Amino acid sequence: MSAITLTTDFGTSDWFVGTMKGVILALAPSAAVVDLTHDVPQGDVRAGAFALAAGCSFFKPGTVHVAVIDPGVGGPRKILVVETARYRFVAPDNGVLTLALAREKIKRVHALENPALRLPKVSRTFHGRDIFAPAAAHLSRGYPVSKTGPRLPDYERLPWPEPVRSPGVIRGEIVYVDRFGNAISNIPSAWLPRPGPAVFVYAGSRNLAPWAGHYQAVPPGQPVAVPGSSGCLELAVNGGHAARRLKLSVGSRVRVRAAGA
Amino acid sequence: MSAITLTTDFGTSDWFVGTMKGVILALAPSAAVVDLTHDVPQGDVRAGAFALAAGCSFFKPGTVHVAVIDPGVGGPRKILVVETARYRFVAPDNGVLTLALAREKIKRVHALENPALRLPKVSRTFHGRDIFAPAAAHLSRGYPVSKTGPRLPDYERLPWPEPVRSPGVIRGEIVYVDRFGNAISNIPSAWLPRPGPAVFVYAGSRNLAPWAGHYQAVPPGQPVAVPGSSGCLELAVNGGHAARRLKLSVGSRVRVRAAGA
Amino acid sequence: MSAITLTTDFGTSDWFVGTMKGVILALAPSAAVVDLTHDVPQGDVRAGAFALAAGCSFFKPGTVHVAVIDPGVGGPRKILVVETARYRFVAPDNGVLTLALAREKIKRVHALENPALRLPKVSRTFHGRDIFAPAAAHLSRGYPVSKTGPRLPDYERLPWPEPVRSPGVIRGEIVYVDRFGNAISNIPSAWLPRPGPAVFVYAGSRNLAPWAGHYQAVPPGQPVAVPGSSGCLELAVNGGHAARRLKLSVGSRVRVRAAGA
Repeated sequence: MSAITLTTDFGTSDWFVGTMKGVILALAPSAAVVDLTHDVPQGDVRAGAFALAAGCSFFKPGTVHVAVIDPGVGGPRKILVVETARYRFVAPDNGVLTLALAREKIKRVHALENPALRLPKVSRTFHGRDIFAPAAAHLSRGYPVSKTGPRLPDYERLPWPEPVRSPGVIRGEIVYVDRFGNAISNIPSAWLPRPGPAVFVYAGSRNLAPWAGHYQAVPPGQPVAVPGSSGCLELAVNGGHAARRLKLSVGSRVRVRAAGA
Repeated sequence: MSAITLTTDFGTSDWFVGTMKGVILALAPSAAVVDLTHDVPQGDVRAGAFALAAGCSFFKPGTVHVAVIDPGVGGPRKILVVETARYRFVAPDNGVLTLALAREKIKRVHALENPALRLPKVSRTFHGRDIFAPAAAHLSRGYPVSKTGPRLPDYERLPWPEPVRSPGVIRGEIVYVDRFGNAISNIPSAWLPRPGPAVFVYAGSRNLAPWAGHYQAVPPGQPVAVPGSSGCLELAVNGGHAARRLKLSVGSRVRVRAAGA
Repeated sequence: MSAITLTTDFGTSDWFVGTMKGVILALAPSAAVVDLTHDVPQGDVRAGAFALAAGCSFFKPGTVHVAVIDPGVGGPRKILVVETARYRFVAPDNGVLTLALAREKIKRVHALENPALRLPKVSRTFHGRDIFAPAAAHLSRGYPVSKTGPRLPDYERLPWPEPVRSPGVIRGEIVYVDRFGNAISNIPSAWLPRPGPAVFVYAGSRNLAPWAGHYQAVPPGQPVAVPGSSGCLELAVNGGHAARRLKLSVGSRVRVRAAGA
């Protein structure tokens, strides 16, 4: 029996997520259903794409990943079932899988249209419960992706800012701010040398942070750039909230310079 | 082994819910414990009743549903164990089961008084942990409802506003606002014709919304009335927060008119 | 298979907790992973210590308790694995286990250093995922504590305020405020006589509350002192938020007087 992860913007203050789990467990009673997060900002497909990509690869092969950030629910958008070398994904075809799939080896992409995989009665406002949840349950029990609906030639991708390297300088931007206020950039840590004093990171308009191995490399309250746990350079403040302190948000510019360059 | 659902106003910022799960798993190690929601507003029995009813029927038969919205904890209120054709419910006798039970076939109603189903030491402030959780664990393992305590002739019901139909007009009110700001009414969608231009919905004092199939039937930012996923007419704003935008809250009037009526 | 509990300050709005569960389930697929809470205030080791101690003892023997309130992540602090008569604990050596261990019979204390218990690649900013989670999974499957790393002679303890008894008066202070606004003191309820009119509780500067058995012993809106569910005297307001109403916070003084004393 596979695990099933859920990534949504449903919040947890209503019965929405619990109800999806009820549907799943009715069809796959011993599935391990794991919340990746339900607090993606409402309709924020980019943030959902980032959270899913940051979390999904730590699950065991065979896991079914469900993402329901779906501002187009009930409209003409398709629902995707994607099989990769390790996982199955179920999500609206609105770009929310862009980042997760960029790291996976895609085997097939289908449109979820098979009515046998839905609840008997389907609403037009809660496909998470009526379509995504039962399909995930069936997939976790081995239902073949090839039978979920017609094969698709391609899927929607979000435009995503790419970092740029030139001699002595790397330019990127902030792509996610986490609950601690850490501002995660799109610059792969692997593009930089090992943390040390020969590198400076500029973030936002006037802020300079040393490139160090961990938060406590600077005194409390001071900014620091570290290799973040998602593989990219991250701006933090030791014991503080970097996004507020350094006035950073999604889209803020980040620049890395080697000393003397 | 049955599933057990939890609906409370305990929030998730303290150890309360986790501790209930510890008690349950100590007695029923392989129970699937599912959070319906823990963010019912503190002591709001009506909101808890709505959340429970909206979510519970998607669970498989045999599920034990526990609701702890219990402002009278430690006082003289009874605790109910209700067996229906499909489920068992455990909840304080304060009306929180009103809406869920209205849709179920009730087989027996008992007062939870059997001391064998409690923790050895019972506090007067946290019956969720000391009484509700262990009873739910025992019930999930097949403990008979008939032995939980004395049979009761009846149970507490909340007053609940009923929608009213007259020729050409239906009158109801808002009964729940969800986290998206969608305002759910007490008017069954089945009372209306299929979504289309012949029907107008008035909500609050001055707002008019078309009756449509889904949120995107209107331009972004515009109000729309849709058949909600709980079976009742729901006021929404495409991509927005209807309750704030249309100044709707629990108790706001909703009126539906057929065109020309 | 043991249960595993998680107590962190990670919040639930990002993918952090879900990712820890992914790591755990990949190594221990049938583990029951239970959230104690993830809303410990960021870096608040005292609050985390209180939550863990209040919740952990309701889990069955064999449970692995993981606490990641870890402002020193990536720095020189050690990670502890503690085996007690009933449980195993995994936590940074920063005092977060102080209160939980005070009630347990400690059998051995080790430093978690065995590289076989980590993810292949370890970040310096997310040890919850890379070190704590896989270690907990291995421990839940029976991995011996003695092999997790070198034995330690002792562990870090938080300074913790002790209540003081003198004839006719007990002095203590508030140590935790829960989500309902109830202010929990460090005064054991067992030090007081049974609730009744012969005892008065003073909290903060000018507030007087009767010592009663439960919240509803006073009229709505009135303050009351009750034996809390964690074993200590708790200041509450019937149907209200005691901390705001009585201006109580962690550190506020509490005094108990026997009548006439």
